[in-house]
Amino acid sequence: MKIDSVDFYYLSMPEVLDIGDGSQDALLVRVTAGDAVGWGECEASPLVSIASLVCPMSHSACKPVQASVLGQAINDVSDIRRIGDLVRANSLDLLQADHTLSGIDIALWDLLGRRLQAPVWQLLGYQRAFPKIPYASVLFGNTPEETYRKALAIAGRGFRAAKFGWGPFGMSTVAYDRDQLHAAREGLGPEGLLLIDAGTVWNSDVYAARLRLPLLKDVQATWLEEPFVSGALAAYSALSRESSPVGLAGGEGCHNLYMAQHMIDHAGLTYVQIDAGRIGGISVAKQVADYATVRGVAYVNHTFTSNLALSASLQPYAGLERDQICEYPTELKSLAVAMTRNHLVPDANGLLHVPDAPGLGIEPDLQGIAPYVVDTEIRVKGQLIYKTPALTACPKSAHSDKHVG
Amino acid sequence: MKIDSVDFYYLSMPEVLDIGDGSQDALLVRVTAGDAVGWGECEASPLVSIASLVCPMSHSACKPVQASVLGQAINDVSDIRRIGDLVRANSLDLLQADHTLSGIDIALWDLLGRRLQAPVWQLLGYQRAFPKIPYASVLFGNTPEETYRKALAIAGRGFRAAKFGWGPFGMSTVAYDRDQLHAAREGLGPEGLLLIDAGTVWNSDVYAARLRLPLLKDVQATWLEEPFVSGALAAYSALSRESSPVGLAGGEGCHNLYMAQHMIDHAGLTYVQIDAGRIGGISVAKQVADYATVRGVAYVNHTFTSNLALSASLQPYAGLERDQICEYPTELKSLAVAMTRNHLVPDANGLLHVPDAPGLGIEPDLQGIAPYVVDTEIRVKGQLIYKTPALTACPKSAHSDKHVG
Repeated sequence: MKIDSVDFYYLSMPEVLDIGDGSQDALLVRVTAGDAVGWGECEASPLVSIASLVCPMSHSACKPVQASVLGQAINDVSDIRRIGDLVRANSLDLLQADHTLSGIDIALWDLLGRRLQAPVWQLLGYQRAFPKIPYASVLFGNTPEETYRKALAIAGRGFRAAKFGWGPFGMSTVAYDRDQLHAAREGLGPEGLLLIDAGTVWNSDVYAARLRLPLLKDVQATWLEEPFVSGALAAYSALSRESSPVGLAGGEGCHNLYMAQHMIDHAGLTYVQIDAGRIGGISVAKQVADYATVRGVAYVNHTFTSNLALSASLQPYAGLERDQICEYPTELKSLAVAMTRNHLVPDANGLLHVPDAPGLGIEPDLQGIAPYVVDTEIRVKGQLIYKTPALTACPKSAHSDKHVG
Repeated sequence: MKIDSVDFYYLSMPEVLDIGDGSQDALLVRVTAGDAVGWGECEASPLVSIASLVCPMSHSACKPVQASVLGQAINDVSDIRRIGDLVRANSLDLLQADHTLSGIDIALWDLLGRRLQAPVWQLLGYQRAFPKIPYASVLFGNTPEETYRKALAIAGRGFRAAKFGWGPFGMSTVAYDRDQLHAAREGLGPEGLLLIDAGTVWNSDVYAARLRLPLLKDVQATWLEEPFVSGALAAYSALSRESSPVGLAGGEGCHNLYMAQHMIDHAGLTYVQIDAGRIGGISVAKQVADYATVRGVAYVNHTFTSNLALSASLQPYAGLERDQICEYPTELKSLAVAMTRNHLVPDANGLLHVPDAPGLGIEPDLQGIAPYVVDTEIRVKGQLIYKTPALTACPKSAHSDKHVG
């Protein structure tokens, strides 16, 4: 088979709010090869990733991403790795390329899995998929009271773990953060795993982060996530020397294998969090999982968008029994819910099962998606180089050329 | 003053060839604040950086770059740093943002320098600018004979140093590379500094790189540049332990301060090469220069486009007497030459002087640029969110709204 088409669909809520909620828009990817179809999703800034898919070449190491994908053979998993290497070489100087490749790589795994009638985690070499303990991933409330109510609701829904992040945390006084943390613990109850996400609020300021460590220990937080930006290895490392028993978590900002390796090697992480929609797809995420396993660092998915992205983010460590915690966004905007026909829901014991179905095991809901399609056009020198393609289930049904959006 | 406008102009040669020549297109940046104007340039993929300037917000940490720039106060150099920090925070999840910020940061330094009638290097805190030894930066010939002729011509023009890179080097046999290297040395003569750029050809393969070390020592190469991609710290470090007296050079792929720090700390570099058009502008490049100085690593500019970008790339280390080598592209396409009214040319002693003039000391040639402007339009939901703006010297002259392109 050869890759015949790579189509990007920019989806968005009618209104995007200035809050740390990544489910407000999405970039859906459809890849076709003959009769085979696969779906993927890129994290963050749909328009910019569309531009990097179709932009004119700048020079031999700055080509549009599609130049390394269209027409390539796709017969087995080694082809996916080969295509990723091609993109990284041919788009070396195109910074956005890793984010763009991510959705394509995910779609290629889905395509092969559907074709071979095997779940992606099996194609990755795992014998079985172990259930995960999903944590309800939510934003801090605007007040401690709101955070308390959120935590109470999460516990009431049977979650064994919850993560509170972003919002006002870390930006005000230590006393305020104490109230937020205690509200979260109180609502969640004494047994639940409590995870805290600082959302890089302290940039690389070890002092500001250190002030919160006693509070985190008081409420028995399991981890402190992203006290700093991904590159601030020295700051992470310094903080890790005094954070125990609270583990440091980070890595969602990594956009290639090297960045993740540097964090694992030099940041003193207990948990490395990888977004398959950013790091270059499932292929690179699996390499990180392998690397982390050898070094005794726990792998955790990062995901904040649809269940398509959620399934993709779980595949790379589906077979790692030891790494149980998984991110499970629970405040998805209607777009992210409407995007797929089926949804991943924790079972009665609060465990999440990675789909045991071909590919990612997730069906896009084309009718559900239609109202959210953002018509986009890019013209260069008067030529239309991108226009939102028709949203169809497979290339055969695209012949009507009717636009669903 | 407040920033009134940030305008991006996509420029390109009529035909872009599939070769490692970064001067085939450019993204020119004009920033205005009241009557003040500054010019900058972003490296690589103009369309993608345009998209990241104007894209709709995805969430609170994924905003278009212009959201953190337009309307901001710009009165002194601390404002430039503040604006950079804003962009990095508000566009944290927008991968392309560092490249996009680079041209804006450069334009802000130019704007302040023009306004304060001071060269940028003076605003950066340097007492004087030391002349540099420019190396003629060219691609390897397609044959050793062509490389020999290039080297001979460079020596004939009075250059004391030359860098050969990309092209066929490292992709064929060791014997072929030997012929290429000896051709370069023979043409350049025994005295000239010979620099070799592998253009990341070995990715992270230490073995392939190691095979070329004896050849590089034979021809007394001063440095081996980019044997590996920027993130491959372990590979760099391994090679550095046996490369002496050939120094390793790298860093052009760094798109933030952290990446450069990691290379300085962990890659065993002798030379760190920074492209101000990629790393976040002159501000971040100067931070790298400071960091490198303390750690005994030499700073070198990376630049492969116009003389506007060249001047910007020299400012961050203009005042470092010890760091003498500078990249000087000598095979610029007509676009990159036509972009500026004045040009930086080595003196009779083969030395290059950083402009002692307000700002970057480079005047864009608007008439020269006009034929290369690439008309670009981006529409989202039917709304025109980007259209190539009128190319004028200052905002006042833009009232005619006449398009020069």
